[in-house]
Amino acid sequence: MNIPSKLIESAVDQISSLPGIGKKTALRLVLELLKRKPEEVRRFSEAFINMREKIHFCKTCHNLADEEECSICRDRSRDSTILCVVSDIRDVMAIESTEQYHGLYHVLGGIISPIDGIGPSDLFIDSLIQRVTEKPVTEIILALNATMEGETTCFYLFRKLSPLDIKVTSIARGVAVGGELEYTDEVTLGRSIQLRTPYEVSLKR
Amino acid sequence: MNIPSKLIESAVDQISSLPGIGKKTALRLVLELLKRKPEEVRRFSEAFINMREKIHFCKTCHNLADEEECSICRDRSRDSTILCVVSDIRDVMAIESTEQYHGLYHVLGGIISPIDGIGPSDLFIDSLIQRVTEKPVTEIILALNATMEGETTCFYLFRKLSPLDIKVTSIARGVAVGGELEYTDEVTLGRSIQLRTPYEVSLKR
Repeated sequence: MNIPSKLIESAVDQISSLPGIGKKTALRLVLELLKRKPEEVRRFSEAFINMREKIHFCKTCHNLADEEECSICRDRSRDSTILCVVSDIRDVMAIESTEQYHGLYHVLGGIISPIDGIGPSDLFIDSLIQRVTEKPVTEIILALNATMEGETTCFYLFRKLSPLDIKVTSIARGVAVGGELEYTDEVTLGRSIQLRTPYEVSLKR
Repeated sequence: MNIPSKLIESAVDQISSLPGIGKKTALRLVLELLKRKPEEVRRFSEAFINMREKIHFCKTCHNLADEEECSICRDRSRDSTILCVVSDIRDVMAIESTEQYHGLYHVLGGIISPIDGIGPSDLFIDSLIQRVTEKPVTEIILALNATMEGETTCFYLFRKLSPLDIKVTSIARGVAVGGELEYTDEVTLGRSIQLRTPYEVSLKR
């Protein structure tokens, strides 16, 4: 692509450095920005600088926060005796959108993945153990991806947590709501039979 | 989606204001930016401010330019007696990438489209006429989209230019290179038969 201006080229290079955005899409976005007023573009750009320079990670759960502690940890109406362990900030948002969970979180910052060179010491596991020993926690919910890495991390955490006399649970694996049995893979379907729940439980919402 | 931070929310809002980027994609991009160093994010953001505040539109052809005149108009090795009329800056880039054209351009800044409220006076048509009367131009190539709006604009320009004794041509419409006759629409195929070219011409490259 022949971009006639160095200024545009540099903006295109920056935006196409983001994952999943190619040069053509980047150019389209940049030309869209060009149509806007200079002060609008300034506001656009400053949102990123502001975010990067002022954002905190919650000192307790490592979630994103505008202050020292995140809004979830600061919320005294939530049940602080239950912790939900997730790998990523996006998982917190996903669970929060369900409005089914009212405890606190602990963000690991990734999952154990030897292929990517991520071991237990790269994750916030020590701070989880410390948190659990310092404050009264009765249950830890492991809410990690149902992949091999996720299962490995769950197993590692379970071994670390089992001496501490805390109930460790895992989010349910099974047939997705709206899913058809015929198209569900065998492992999931097999697991959903093993882990069948009393019918009355599924009526509760 | 529950975004736990106002700073992130504002960055997500800004990036999802771009066309074709939804909230989820925006969040993914913003979290990617969060992983980068603050000075990298500053560089990212400043590319857009710089671009918007320093960009020029070429005073001659209305193409993008880093200076008063664009790099194409400044290039004295190009044939200034041929003008290629396009609707958009992106069309200039597309034609330039073919390396088949060595004349100058004239960017209209859109096409006539009564539905969108765009009439001839909203486009750089007057400046085209002025340019053609002031400097010696022997040929004008109309390179607009083959849509109804494009054809309307071509017809309007043709009527405006015909009193001026300049050769007005249009880019060829026909079966695309690599295209199969069977899957070519009837109008295009019909046009390609009407506008057939001597076989020797298609051998020249």
